[in-house]
Amino acid sequence: MLNKPRLLTPGPTPLPEEVRLAMARDMIHHRKPNFLPVMEDVRAGLKYLFQTTQEVMPLAASGTGAMAAAVTNLFAPGEKILCIEGGKFGERWGEIADMHGQVPVRLQVEWGTAVDPAAVEAALDADPSIKGVCVQASETSTGVLHPIRQLAKITAGRDVLLVADGISAVGISPCPMDAWGIDCLLTGSQKGLMLPPGLAFVALSDKAWAKCDTVRPSNFYFQLKGERAKIAANQTMFTSAVGLLVGLRESLRLFREFGLENMMRKQWALTMMARAGARAMGLELLAKTDFTWGLTAIKMPLGVESPAVLKTASADYGVVLAGGQGHMKNQVVRLGHMGYVDFGDVLAGLAALRAAFAAAGGYVGCTDPLEQAMTAYSEALAQGPAL
Amino acid sequence: MLNKPRLLTPGPTPLPEEVRLAMARDMIHHRKPNFLPVMEDVRAGLKYLFQTTQEVMPLAASGTGAMAAAVTNLFAPGEKILCIEGGKFGERWGEIADMHGQVPVRLQVEWGTAVDPAAVEAALDADPSIKGVCVQASETSTGVLHPIRQLAKITAGRDVLLVADGISAVGISPCPMDAWGIDCLLTGSQKGLMLPPGLAFVALSDKAWAKCDTVRPSNFYFQLKGERAKIAANQTMFTSAVGLLVGLRESLRLFREFGLENMMRKQWALTMMARAGARAMGLELLAKTDFTWGLTAIKMPLGVESPAVLKTASADYGVVLAGGQGHMKNQVVRLGHMGYVDFGDVLAGLAALRAAFAAAGGYVGCTDPLEQAMTAYSEALAQGPAL
Repeated sequence: MLNKPRLLTPGPTPLPEEVRLAMARDMIHHRKPNFLPVMEDVRAGLKYLFQTTQEVMPLAASGTGAMAAAVTNLFAPGEKILCIEGGKFGERWGEIADMHGQVPVRLQVEWGTAVDPAAVEAALDADPSIKGVCVQASETSTGVLHPIRQLAKITAGRDVLLVADGISAVGISPCPMDAWGIDCLLTGSQKGLMLPPGLAFVALSDKAWAKCDTVRPSNFYFQLKGERAKIAANQTMFTSAVGLLVGLRESLRLFREFGLENMMRKQWALTMMARAGARAMGLELLAKTDFTWGLTAIKMPLGVESPAVLKTASADYGVVLAGGQGHMKNQVVRLGHMGYVDFGDVLAGLAALRAAFAAAGGYVGCTDPLEQAMTAYSEALAQGPAL
Repeated sequence: MLNKPRLLTPGPTPLPEEVRLAMARDMIHHRKPNFLPVMEDVRAGLKYLFQTTQEVMPLAASGTGAMAAAVTNLFAPGEKILCIEGGKFGERWGEIADMHGQVPVRLQVEWGTAVDPAAVEAALDADPSIKGVCVQASETSTGVLHPIRQLAKITAGRDVLLVADGISAVGISPCPMDAWGIDCLLTGSQKGLMLPPGLAFVALSDKAWAKCDTVRPSNFYFQLKGERAKIAANQTMFTSAVGLLVGLRESLRLFREFGLENMMRKQWALTMMARAGARAMGLELLAKTDFTWGLTAIKMPLGVESPAVLKTASADYGVVLAGGQGHMKNQVVRLGHMGYVDFGDVLAGLAALRAAFAAAGGYVGCTDPLEQAMTAYSEALAQGPAL
């Protein structure tokens, strides 16, 4: 009763009341007529969100399911894919390929930095048998935005597909599928979409569909050609995640009503707020530039371990933050500010972070990080994103 | 989608998830066996909350209903009651008496200050035919605590009942009915109790029950003797507000689990936080001393009208504040921090207040009110209330 629970992780995120109420409605059956208008609305809303004229196919799966669907439907066993590895999720492409028979060509990127488009171009030039570039639009483990727009320009003129994991980008920061020329864009439900986990989404460009049509299905649960046939009839191949889809309809309605641009402007302002607050505490940000708009990854100085910070923030302030991932597990605190999160949540998150950091032995030099954060928020909201 | 709705009014207040989920359960009937354990728990929980061994009777009514029940059940038409008028709710005693035939003797108190016990003593000495003192434990319109404990000492030795409106005090600041010797303590559901409006509660001391037994019922809906007979059987005279009572059971469970003292410590800390923040903005507090623990009434300087401040706080920050009441309608902003409210809500409320105050033409001298508020909160929480 002392503190409200504040879920400031990079997904799952808090859910709007409208979404929660929609999901509390009576269950309906996915093969009956009253399900069809749900899917009709969902299809239109997903196209708006992905900024595409292609169908966006919902899968009853986590975001990783969509990554596996992309790799296994677009590339045949034995085909090479360039995997951009600058974080835990970047590494996942190669793990999927290893299991399904595609051949990963790993491009290492220092954690906390974005991939250099020239390095991708050089890798493709060096090996013309590479058929795809798999990359995170936003690398959730480090809070870095990779340069999807530039990468799409590189793959456009080649027999190479650009597969972008937009799990912490879609609905958060710009990722317009058609305008940028992304061949495969995917995301999950528990980040920008303000839904519980359990749904994933994949859309393919014409170029990607043409390739997909040549790849023999080898992954029973993820058959994109089959899903394409079904979605035209407002259906999914297997049992639809009805409750989540009913919530999704509401979430997509909120996106339309508020406007995708306004949502991104909010995300930008919260990002500038979190960064200003953490910096004012004297903390170093993992991503110096090219930072994600949905979370802020903050490095702990030597002597302060993130698990201790997380524990105090939760126990004493009700604020749930995330630690680092992979080899940065104990050195990074990730403050999520995507989904249904506002300035008040970030204020509480920063106050908790400061107190927990100090309790863990950290030194906070500046006395007004909350004020600096609030000023940064107001200015960023007024000016809009620097694109 | 930019801002979350934050209800920082002096009731209704936000509700805990546990209470909302309880109220969403299937409806039950108030004359069937499965309602009895609900009332059994509610009765025990209300005694804990009121700190009394007397029965606390729930009424399907707003807090004003409980005030009317007290006046009409404890005083016969023609009997005199001393009404402490230091705010809008103080004035209500006299309005109730005027309608039902009791004779109000009005004791005026400057809004923003507490009644002087010596003035009450003098009034009772001057007119021994006065049979009751009706007073707010917490005057919600001004944010003032009246000195109930001292008033109870004055009425104890006389043929006078002390009737205390604890609507914004019970569950918020100390008001132990038995220990202080309050003859009639009443409250409503939508303040400290973290419930929607619609329930009121009344408890009487032995002295009050003895008096009540001599007063002929004249108010059909509020018959406390009848309610006393019913509650012994876990029933109410008229249709019980079942949904609210089911929520109340949950709220009372949360009070027991967290502890009444801890709840008050939280309220004290939030009060010190709100006061420090407002003061740091250069704003004057309506109650200099004797301040309520559930809300902070803040005076607007000349030239700044509270409706403009309220409008911006809501439109630009999602923060719902309350204005003044009565003749102070436009001169006061009331920041509620009772019920299910925590430090993060108050931080957001203060940030919104500052921005809205500045937008309405106010001058904020200090640059770190949020920091001062947070420091005051942490210190007050660590030290506990100054009683």
